[in-house]
Amino acid sequence: MSINTFGHLFRFTTWGESHGPALGAVVDGCPPGIAVDAAMLQHWLDKRKPGQNRNTTQRQEPDAVEILSGVFEGKTTGTPIQLLIRNTDQRSKDYGDIATSFRPGHADITYYQKYGIRDYRGGGRSSARETAARVAAGGIAREVLKALAPQVKITAYMVQMGSRAIDRTRFDWDEIARNDFWCPDAETAVLWNDTLDHLRRKDHDSVGAMIEVVASGVPVGLGAPIYGKLDSDLASAMMSINAVKGVEIGEGMAAAALRGSENADGIYYEDGEIRYGSNHAGGILGGISTGQDIVVRFAVKPTSSILTPRQSIQIDGTPLEVITKGRHDPCVGIRAVPVAEAMMALVLADHLLLDRGQTGGVRGHIGAD
Amino acid sequence: MSINTFGHLFRFTTWGESHGPALGAVVDGCPPGIAVDAAMLQHWLDKRKPGQNRNTTQRQEPDAVEILSGVFEGKTTGTPIQLLIRNTDQRSKDYGDIATSFRPGHADITYYQKYGIRDYRGGGRSSARETAARVAAGGIAREVLKALAPQVKITAYMVQMGSRAIDRTRFDWDEIARNDFWCPDAETAVLWNDTLDHLRRKDHDSVGAMIEVVASGVPVGLGAPIYGKLDSDLASAMMSINAVKGVEIGEGMAAAALRGSENADGIYYEDGEIRYGSNHAGGILGGISTGQDIVVRFAVKPTSSILTPRQSIQIDGTPLEVITKGRHDPCVGIRAVPVAEAMMALVLADHLLLDRGQTGGVRGHIGAD
Amino acid sequence: MSINTFGHLFRFTTWGESHGPALGAVVDGCPPGIAVDAAMLQHWLDKRKPGQNRNTTQRQEPDAVEILSGVFEGKTTGTPIQLLIRNTDQRSKDYGDIATSFRPGHADITYYQKYGIRDYRGGGRSSARETAARVAAGGIAREVLKALAPQVKITAYMVQMGSRAIDRTRFDWDEIARNDFWCPDAETAVLWNDTLDHLRRKDHDSVGAMIEVVASGVPVGLGAPIYGKLDSDLASAMMSINAVKGVEIGEGMAAAALRGSENADGIYYEDGEIRYGSNHAGGILGGISTGQDIVVRFAVKPTSSILTPRQSIQIDGTPLEVITKGRHDPCVGIRAVPVAEAMMALVLADHLLLDRGQTGGVRGHIGAD
Amino acid sequence: MSINTFGHLFRFTTWGESHGPALGAVVDGCPPGIAVDAAMLQHWLDKRKPGQNRNTTQRQEPDAVEILSGVFEGKTTGTPIQLLIRNTDQRSKDYGDIATSFRPGHADITYYQKYGIRDYRGGGRSSARETAARVAAGGIAREVLKALAPQVKITAYMVQMGSRAIDRTRFDWDEIARNDFWCPDAETAVLWNDTLDHLRRKDHDSVGAMIEVVASGVPVGLGAPIYGKLDSDLASAMMSINAVKGVEIGEGMAAAALRGSENADGIYYEDGEIRYGSNHAGGILGGISTGQDIVVRFAVKPTSSILTPRQSIQIDGTPLEVITKGRHDPCVGIRAVPVAEAMMALVLADHLLLDRGQTGGVRGHIGAD
Repeated sequence: MSINTFGHLFRFTTWGESHGPALGAVVDGCPPGIAVDAAMLQHWLDKRKPGQNRNTTQRQEPDAVEILSGVFEGKTTGTPIQLLIRNTDQRSKDYGDIATSFRPGHADITYYQKYGIRDYRGGGRSSARETAARVAAGGIAREVLKALAPQVKITAYMVQMGSRAIDRTRFDWDEIARNDFWCPDAETAVLWNDTLDHLRRKDHDSVGAMIEVVASGVPVGLGAPIYGKLDSDLASAMMSINAVKGVEIGEGMAAAALRGSENADGIYYEDGEIRYGSNHAGGILGGISTGQDIVVRFAVKPTSSILTPRQSIQIDGTPLEVITKGRHDPCVGIRAVPVAEAMMALVLADHLLLDRGQTGGVRGHIGAD
Repeated sequence: MSINTFGHLFRFTTWGESHGPALGAVVDGCPPGIAVDAAMLQHWLDKRKPGQNRNTTQRQEPDAVEILSGVFEGKTTGTPIQLLIRNTDQRSKDYGDIATSFRPGHADITYYQKYGIRDYRGGGRSSARETAARVAAGGIAREVLKALAPQVKITAYMVQMGSRAIDRTRFDWDEIARNDFWCPDAETAVLWNDTLDHLRRKDHDSVGAMIEVVASGVPVGLGAPIYGKLDSDLASAMMSINAVKGVEIGEGMAAAALRGSENADGIYYEDGEIRYGSNHAGGILGGISTGQDIVVRFAVKPTSSILTPRQSIQIDGTPLEVITKGRHDPCVGIRAVPVAEAMMALVLADHLLLDRGQTGGVRGHIGAD
Repeated sequence: MSINTFGHLFRFTTWGESHGPALGAVVDGCPPGIAVDAAMLQHWLDKRKPGQNRNTTQRQEPDAVEILSGVFEGKTTGTPIQLLIRNTDQRSKDYGDIATSFRPGHADITYYQKYGIRDYRGGGRSSARETAARVAAGGIAREVLKALAPQVKITAYMVQMGSRAIDRTRFDWDEIARNDFWCPDAETAVLWNDTLDHLRRKDHDSVGAMIEVVASGVPVGLGAPIYGKLDSDLASAMMSINAVKGVEIGEGMAAAALRGSENADGIYYEDGEIRYGSNHAGGILGGISTGQDIVVRFAVKPTSSILTPRQSIQIDGTPLEVITKGRHDPCVGIRAVPVAEAMMALVLADHLLLDRGQTGGVRGHIGAD
Repeated sequence: MSINTFGHLFRFTTWGESHGPALGAVVDGCPPGIAVDAAMLQHWLDKRKPGQNRNTTQRQEPDAVEILSGVFEGKTTGTPIQLLIRNTDQRSKDYGDIATSFRPGHADITYYQKYGIRDYRGGGRSSARETAARVAAGGIAREVLKALAPQVKITAYMVQMGSRAIDRTRFDWDEIARNDFWCPDAETAVLWNDTLDHLRRKDHDSVGAMIEVVASGVPVGLGAPIYGKLDSDLASAMMSINAVKGVEIGEGMAAAALRGSENADGIYYEDGEIRYGSNHAGGILGGISTGQDIVVRFAVKPTSSILTPRQSIQIDGTPLEVITKGRHDPCVGIRAVPVAEAMMALVLADHLLLDRGQTGGVRGHIGAD
């Protein structure tokens, strides 16, 4: 049962609406003795924070996180960690129109139909603000990884905005943090900037995006076949992010077009280590990590909140044209980047503990002797 | 916690290895009073059964399912339903080589590394034979849907094999059951047949595929935001199928390239019903079903078991070239089609019960009155 | 997986320590459209609140509950409900001694041994303050019951303090709320008062208690055999309350001494209704509610925090005599009464939703027709 | 969600009815590399097997267990272990009468009311035959304990039958296996034998019992506060056994009558070890094991199936007197003894793995240096 909870052993439950007094997450099952403080979590929240540049929503939220429980004298105690983020800039008046009508492409209509009631202010529970709570919880997961598997490194970045993908020959890890788009290709970042300017000023439209998340240094053996496979959990995790419509691992959808002789990664044993000739598998075989880089990609649909009028209805069935004013991201994919990193960290920390519980971390030996 | 269990309220746990005495599934949380008998389940197992034509593995398994509990005088009693399928054609000698070596692209190496031990015969637990248990459990889910939401119809089919996709202008629902590939386009089916013949006889290779699953007639309101979103659960379900590397809903990965004005489906109210101008969303908004067709696609990698030699290692690290003899599917995607239908049925039945539990099936009213 | 979470479908997770900034609970799976406000919850918290009379701890806590999410315009929305209670009277200095020593009968030593770290202030997570969060969550459960099964009535009361039990011939439901002990027998309440005065002033000691909880009007058919039996869940729920050492249903431990002819409740059909000649079963057969009163009793051990010196050790193994000053309940059982009501409400609301999900509330018909 | 499943990380799901073709359990989350074979499990099933002496049901069941999955070459592989026990002596004709009537004290009526259908043969799912599956699963748990915590020893025995309790001054561990009642007091065993003879031959009645289960050598630190406390899980486990009406830990219900100065166990540090002056706590403080003996007691009501006529009704409401012929245990408590041991083993194995997952087995150090 996991309506608002994610994870097997390291579990988090998020709560809160876009325009309620606060939102947050309670993290349960965190090992004791892990160094955690609010500043560590704030670092990651600041990456996701809205209003940082003109390409994301102009809502001003400090997104300051408070730790209310589970940490004592700077260390986790093994008890649940409650993380609280107050909503301060709740300009609810922007949303008055949507109380009785439904924005196309939004969850307004399905939440109303399912529950018979909805907190319509800013999308309520269906707002991407919920992802702030994930980023905070992801900060705890990162500290767990740092303590138990310090070699793990997680990096997400955008590889496509609209129809324009990056040029992988220009891929530069250091570039990712330098531009507003977490783009590893500086030239493409400039082009994306132009695209967004045009969309915002002229077209009053929005655009989709594709994000890639890579985790390196992941220990061999994480993943719980059959229904807790690492890739199955990652797919669930990424698909749960607002506006995501597709998830792929390694070769992904392109695997359909390959032949077996192209796709299966050859295995070598060199210098006392297992190596693979390629990584079509994206670091996962049979739902279990191989030790290679875990590579996940997902597509984010274009923001449905646009100034261009769209056909919709009111609650009584009468038609209306919806123009969403509010303060919205023309490319919501940008802010999905830190969320993707958080979800990767949360899934890996969970599987690390789950594997420790089930196998005790014992590994089958390969090699001479 | 869901290592070998899937579902929230309607839950199934599969068990069994490729070459053990039997495999099966126990289905828990099934409502009482549902008409079920072994013949109903057998119908679906026969669709998935190996050895039916020359394009799938020549392993001969009757895959006869027995119901050991939970059904009394032809009806479910609300208690757990144990489904058992015996393994009869366990030609283990074919697999002797892999006891001490690892097939590239297979879970051999990760299972061994994680658990320190593995039932290497035919892939053991990681074999696609496990999906027979899902198909049997899916048969129960179908009867639940038939009883509680009889208008639901689930159809899966192949839309791409290797680099060749179907031509959607020739799409014919009736064609799907007529050819060996569950292909809705008769002309493409012929071409695929040639491709497979060539692969099997000349190239000794295999090929990937893409499957699409459509559920029509799905009630509005299924899906449990945030971490039990319908799309999130479908992604997890499909990604858990052997060899799947990517999953997408509606517009899927292509959503990255769209603009908001193109992607958001307009909403209309006509003849007392809510309608949408398009279905880019694939029938799900905010993780909740809209009542439109639910459209899921996933990619299956090419079978890694091929006669073409591949570079690998033995357990002691010494290199070897692996040629997998056994009896393998040149396009494992074909047999994933009935599995995809089963997983869709299982997810929908689960969410139907979950929604009934949480909301009591109450729906927000839209329209005049 | 349920470390700090309880429930199947209506689930709550508590968090917080005795002397942290706050504690609370997040309730997930609550049906939409239920009328809830903070005042409703406060009513029940006020019943449990410390410092109300001289027989309970003199810690002064307003225990004011805030609803941070999941309720919109006075109604639940079907999304998670975060309940927050600030700790205001954290006189931590009282607890300085226990940072490096262990109080006999307390969880100090086991928390330290298990986690290697503990928030020693006031018992941290192991403090009975955690039950405030349950009482708040229980308030939500009561509103669910009021909406879906309005005939349910839950009453808890003390039936024994130390060696003195109530005289059931004097049982008066109206008396329960009139004295400081939730005692249904006015004469015994006076005697208990004397006992406590003596314990506190002269003996510097504490005393155990027995609580009984009765739920009437419970619908037939709640309970999920085998491992979610109603009595099994109630046993788990009550045993999870601090200091509880035994739980019994109906005849309870005394059933061991009975004969079958005495114990089995005869069944009658009168005036179109099923009736039972007695209620040895305590309202539960085979883990499922019969419609009779559900009767649960549990024993609370005497508070271990007493002024009488007890033999213990310091963290380095050196012996010391522990006298617990602080502000402690001489009979912690008193404050367990509202907690017991809350747990009963939480279990019943959960099973009501679970049954609605699984059976749809259909019931087998008994009687002519 | 745990309708027919028990456990956090080491989980088992039982299935099957009294008179169906078979029953069993699937154990999931078992660590790999544990030596297991059918004979090991059979040993425990034989202890519980009916028809062994004249004091238990004369049903003849070999209760032979088959391992269908999860074990390879004598060792667990970390995949689910399916255990199957065939029902061979299904004398269904004995039960014809109860198809349309309800036995007092049985789950007949509540199962029918809840589900609208029931497998009435021999009680169907509500029969104590379900416990055979637990005993088989418990056999796996014992092997896990043997591998990971070999010093753990679990022993259950009867301490009371009807109104006659054992004399603890005559307690003899070796006596337990020598008599038909798992009675540690040889003299009382003789008296119980007379009682049962009389009940069976003359009174046509049955009698209740009390069982005690002791686990020694349990590592410090097992138990997951708050809602997975070790005592809370044990209470749930024991209460889920058929006919159990009360569960207590350590001092149990008697704790209500004690004073704090009597109840709290003093703590000592001697010879480099922590010791306690007494064990009123029953080996658990704050839901976590102390390392002392874990002591659980539970009461089993008298068998409701007796030859003495009892007042009941038929499905159409007409009254009838029920005499239950069948083959029933005059004291069902006797056969609960091996079940209690199994449940203790299952709970301990689960918490051992859960703790390994969460804390990694790190323990806070007490002592000099």
